[in-house]
Amino acid sequence: MVAEPIRPLEWLDGKIRYLDQRKLPTSEIYVETDNPDQVVEAIKTLAIRGAPLIGIAAAYGVALAIYHVRNADAGTVRSAFEKSSIKLGTSRPTAVNLFWALQRMRKVFEEHADQSLVELKKRLLEEARQIHREDEAMCRRIGELGAEILPNAASVLTHCNTGYLATGGKGTAQGILSTAWERHKLKHVYIDETRPLLQGARLTAWELIKLGIPATLLTDNTAAFVMQRGAVNAVVVGADRIAANGDVANKVGTYGLAVLAKHHGIPFYVAAPISTVDPETVSGAGIPIEQRSADEVTIIGGHRVAVNDVDVYSPAFDVTPNELITAIVTDRGVLRAPFSSAIKQLFSTL
Amino acid sequence: MVAEPIRPLEWLDGKIRYLDQRKLPTSEIYVETDNPDQVVEAIKTLAIRGAPLIGIAAAYGVALAIYHVRNADAGTVRSAFEKSSIKLGTSRPTAVNLFWALQRMRKVFEEHADQSLVELKKRLLEEARQIHREDEAMCRRIGELGAEILPNAASVLTHCNTGYLATGGKGTAQGILSTAWERHKLKHVYIDETRPLLQGARLTAWELIKLGIPATLLTDNTAAFVMQRGAVNAVVVGADRIAANGDVANKVGTYGLAVLAKHHGIPFYVAAPISTVDPETVSGAGIPIEQRSADEVTIIGGHRVAVNDVDVYSPAFDVTPNELITAIVTDRGVLRAPFSSAIKQLFSTL
Repeated sequence: MVAEPIRPLEWLDGKIRYLDQRKLPTSEIYVETDNPDQVVEAIKTLAIRGAPLIGIAAAYGVALAIYHVRNADAGTVRSAFEKSSIKLGTSRPTAVNLFWALQRMRKVFEEHADQSLVELKKRLLEEARQIHREDEAMCRRIGELGAEILPNAASVLTHCNTGYLATGGKGTAQGILSTAWERHKLKHVYIDETRPLLQGARLTAWELIKLGIPATLLTDNTAAFVMQRGAVNAVVVGADRIAANGDVANKVGTYGLAVLAKHHGIPFYVAAPISTVDPETVSGAGIPIEQRSADEVTIIGGHRVAVNDVDVYSPAFDVTPNELITAIVTDRGVLRAPFSSAIKQLFSTL
Repeated sequence: MVAEPIRPLEWLDGKIRYLDQRKLPTSEIYVETDNPDQVVEAIKTLAIRGAPLIGIAAAYGVALAIYHVRNADAGTVRSAFEKSSIKLGTSRPTAVNLFWALQRMRKVFEEHADQSLVELKKRLLEEARQIHREDEAMCRRIGELGAEILPNAASVLTHCNTGYLATGGKGTAQGILSTAWERHKLKHVYIDETRPLLQGARLTAWELIKLGIPATLLTDNTAAFVMQRGAVNAVVVGADRIAANGDVANKVGTYGLAVLAKHHGIPFYVAAPISTVDPETVSGAGIPIEQRSADEVTIIGGHRVAVNDVDVYSPAFDVTPNELITAIVTDRGVLRAPFSSAIKQLFSTL
């Protein structure tokens, strides 16, 4: 794997080492664990986050659970596999990469369940590493394809975090930005802070400064104004799940940006590996939307910003209908409307 | 004046007593001061905020400056008046009520400058009190007119804070909500938290709970999703300055809400006293937009949420073009398109 400036997740000889993203940008704290339950907890609490990285973490989580099984009895091994799969599979509901990664791990498990425990451990770990490597390559490919379609002197608005911290490589939407930057096609990035968890402010601003990409942080409220002033000529975001018709579930706020982009005649691009496309989900209406806790809205960094007894509605994601999307940049090509047939065709070639 | 549940500003025998709104909702701290410079500081730092309340505070600030003049020499008195006027007049640039209130105070000053200092003090204080009383009546009238045009079983999205804390009475946009609530026309309020200073989360949620109005707090990012789901049938916001053509400067995020409301076919109402309409400003392009400090975005409640060296763009306001506005509810009637002639006609009757 190419040396990366930021490594949010690694396998280290029977342990998983991850960057606790909740502590960024003020502290860069890496945690090592040999406990798959802690991986589940890290995903639930968003210490590990980003749809592709969640998939990678889940794969390593399964490998970790089997890696520490000492009793080669088939029932014990299967029970460890199922337990870790269920816990990881229910850690977050929206991102499809999680289920996709767990399915790949299951396939390898079933294929090698009758072999020696040593062999099974090796195969599962190899599969998790393969998922990780593939994700890195996917990011590179998405970056290349996306950088090509961005306008010259691109001034891009992005939302949430879709970079090294969200993936196994340079990122999805952010992979496009860093590739465009390397190719002198990118002028500026506007970063939505992305309430409630401030992934834009905490993570994307931190990453773009590390990468030397000129960027300006905005409150989410300011995006419309920046578009109105003509300062943005493309919006690029990631995705947590893409339905068979091209509807996109992504961090809450994405749908509003898509409406605003349409109003201002600005192209709206979604970037995601094909593992994010779920052909089983017919449309956005079928995507389960995770509800987050009120405390994430009413308490910021331990500081209470709203009265305790206020009712809060805090969906983690929203759904952008396909008609607001200019193109979906995947590692297997750029999809354009009509998305249903573009997606069907793409899957028929896999 | 009718007993009010919340009194953010009062004159108390040679002092101004104000609620330090920066400390809400966790602490309800009232500050008493006889120093007009502290009133300026309170406006600058948003301890006192809301376009109408800023106007009232500025009027009391001038009255306070003259109240404590001991030397009746005409030059001394005028110098105290001019100094306080300049300082108050430069405390915040966007809200027109501030300049309007200072002009009224100047008129009274000029009319009574040749009278005894005691008389001048009395007249200036009376004028500030009159501005305060008028604002309370304006709020009541806006509430009545606005409640009439809201749909039945109104489910309203609002932004920032426009209630008791922002005015001399029950509020502008929020005055409409509380009046509609009293008349059983209001079902629910969705409150945008309103980054960066979280006036929705900190102030509006606190007020609506005090008033017993059912309300749900949202991150600003979630407004589009709530509209998409059909949960909102009106948007009601305040204004900091309204140009002669009906373009509206209001808290940043308002413009984006107006675009979203249009996309979803939801009526978009602006509520403000006519003192907010500035016939001298031809269109929104002529409204100066205050830029706020980066720290308000990168530090929340003392907690750093973005790296120190990130570039931040933080306009306090944005401008909503008149074509996105369904109606402007003033204390002198409801204005509708074409706004230029509606505003011209309204001013011709004053």
